[in-house]
Amino acid sequence: MAKGLEPIRWEGDSLFLLDQTKIPREKSYTKVRTLSETVKAIKEMVVRGAPAIAITGIFGASLGFNEQVSVFSMEEVQIMLSEILESRPTAVNLSFALDQLRDRIRVSGSKSWTQAKDLAIAFGQELLTKDLSSNRELGSNGTLLFNPNPTRLEIVTHCNTGALATGGHGTALGVIRSLKEKGHDLVVYADETRPFLQGSRLTAFEMMEEGIECFIITDGMSGWLLQNKKIDAVLVGCDRIAKNGDVANKIGTYNLALVAKAHKVPFYVCATRESFDLTKETGKDIPIEMRTPIEVTEYSFLKGKSGDSLIKPGDTSPVGAKALNPSFDITPYELISGYITEFGNIQSSDIPNVTRV
Amino acid sequence: MAKGLEPIRWEGDSLFLLDQTKIPREKSYTKVRTLSETVKAIKEMVVRGAPAIAITGIFGASLGFNEQVSVFSMEEVQIMLSEILESRPTAVNLSFALDQLRDRIRVSGSKSWTQAKDLAIAFGQELLTKDLSSNRELGSNGTLLFNPNPTRLEIVTHCNTGALATGGHGTALGVIRSLKEKGHDLVVYADETRPFLQGSRLTAFEMMEEGIECFIITDGMSGWLLQNKKIDAVLVGCDRIAKNGDVANKIGTYNLALVAKAHKVPFYVCATRESFDLTKETGKDIPIEMRTPIEVTEYSFLKGKSGDSLIKPGDTSPVGAKALNPSFDITPYELISGYITEFGNIQSSDIPNVTRV
Repeated sequence: MAKGLEPIRWEGDSLFLLDQTKIPREKSYTKVRTLSETVKAIKEMVVRGAPAIAITGIFGASLGFNEQVSVFSMEEVQIMLSEILESRPTAVNLSFALDQLRDRIRVSGSKSWTQAKDLAIAFGQELLTKDLSSNRELGSNGTLLFNPNPTRLEIVTHCNTGALATGGHGTALGVIRSLKEKGHDLVVYADETRPFLQGSRLTAFEMMEEGIECFIITDGMSGWLLQNKKIDAVLVGCDRIAKNGDVANKIGTYNLALVAKAHKVPFYVCATRESFDLTKETGKDIPIEMRTPIEVTEYSFLKGKSGDSLIKPGDTSPVGAKALNPSFDITPYELISGYITEFGNIQSSDIPNVTRV
Repeated sequence: MAKGLEPIRWEGDSLFLLDQTKIPREKSYTKVRTLSETVKAIKEMVVRGAPAIAITGIFGASLGFNEQVSVFSMEEVQIMLSEILESRPTAVNLSFALDQLRDRIRVSGSKSWTQAKDLAIAFGQELLTKDLSSNRELGSNGTLLFNPNPTRLEIVTHCNTGALATGGHGTALGVIRSLKEKGHDLVVYADETRPFLQGSRLTAFEMMEEGIECFIITDGMSGWLLQNKKIDAVLVGCDRIAKNGDVANKIGTYNLALVAKAHKVPFYVCATRESFDLTKETGKDIPIEMRTPIEVTEYSFLKGKSGDSLIKPGDTSPVGAKALNPSFDITPYELISGYITEFGNIQSSDIPNVTRV
């Protein structure tokens, strides 16, 4: 990945986020100086993707610690970490990373905000590095599920699970990148992924940068696609995996899994160990974030260069129209052919043995 | 339906089409004066919906006949009707109506373009009236599939199948209107129906005008919806029904049918007899229209008041991104709980006995 496409960069004492609401029109970094700016950036999806959010949250904590003028206390640490956690509830990576940070601060016996800040920065950098190497392992493992000889492979994916969503390389897109490295001739069909268009804006962008042939389809076209083309696999990322193997992922994933099942196309979930949450027995226990309906009715995230919305009320739906906007759905484990991870390709029955560190 | 919302109006010697690419922002009529303007209006979806296209095509033929200066001949009639037919290939209603018009002209022994024109105008008006009455019968039949006592009903629909798509009342939305007339308390979930947004632009518009509660969902949300709410039925329209019961309808219908099947929610196709095409054995024989990819990548149909596109290249997908844009898909008969028609509610096994006149 070109240096200019890193979604998260820590420079000096500041966090720089590649503003993913502006891609593909513009590649610009937003400087994030405070904890509340971090929370806002996560909520508004300037940064998105479960692994990227976790790393951002840790750097954001360091910014919060740096702002503190009161006496250091673990209670205060916890209040700040909770504030970050509430920014997006569905992905487990953020929760897990914040728990780890809290434990590290406690174990280190930090007595000052400066120490806590330094710990958070070091941990954030560690997560960045680790996520990239985990993604590379995951990608390599994923290639084992395909023909070992270079061949033409046609793959469907949903949302964006690439370098932009992670510390680099990507989860589902990481497998696709690794397949390309092995010499396969790839065609990727990217669900546009309404409402936020992560597929058409971000996945198509990454695939074009990578020189991989990519066709955008609307979220309702996957059935037609599997009826009419020989598809080798569906690869998706995830935000949280329950103990029984149910998967929370970007809204539309479940529909795609039903389509794959109907056509007997393998449906693989790509995840690093941070996505497994054994405290949740099934998908029913995973909280689903409901976002503002105007992402659906007015494409409210699509802003022009002046910062104005491109779509006005009344353009794509009547003024006053109501909408629902669940940001994730649950795909039951029965629809999942396997889980591609950095520690191997596993089945739902293996999940209770997954450790997160 | 308010007089101002008729999709097709014949006044004097001209055809007026409610421009459906501008709804909900603007309710304006386009005056169509010639055959080629008719073809353009159908291709660009100024008018859409299988029944509405058929009626438009007949009035368009009258405009074409009126333009003729050569000597009248059936060969010339056929050339003009073929030109209209090619405007949109998937819906069978247009093809059927044009065949009927040709037969009427032949049987009448027309000797002049004026006679042919008058026949076409009369037939267009007849179709308008007949479609409205068929829709009312269909709607009434549809209510028989629900609780006869007024109750709360939650229904999912796809695309727009209302007054705007037909001669009035609608097919799937006609059933919904008839259920409301019977005193039911309705909630409609409208798939936004990408790429053309017939659901969020037109169905939400019609439901709001009708005072029926309506929530727009993106096409990938139906799985979440059926997982989380008790849905009474999915109601869709159709563009063509093959002899075995396979249905061509707006892209995304098949995905929705798979979701309905997974949740054992009844999935009904609403159609008048003109949609049955016994010359097609199965859905595989139905031609699927492929439309321009820029409807997907750049929302090319969304124009501002100045006529400029609201979305520019690079806004919702990278400049140069590729996309697929099949306009319809095939839902196999096994996924269809029944067909609601003006001559009763039938099963796929009844279809070989359906007559079109």
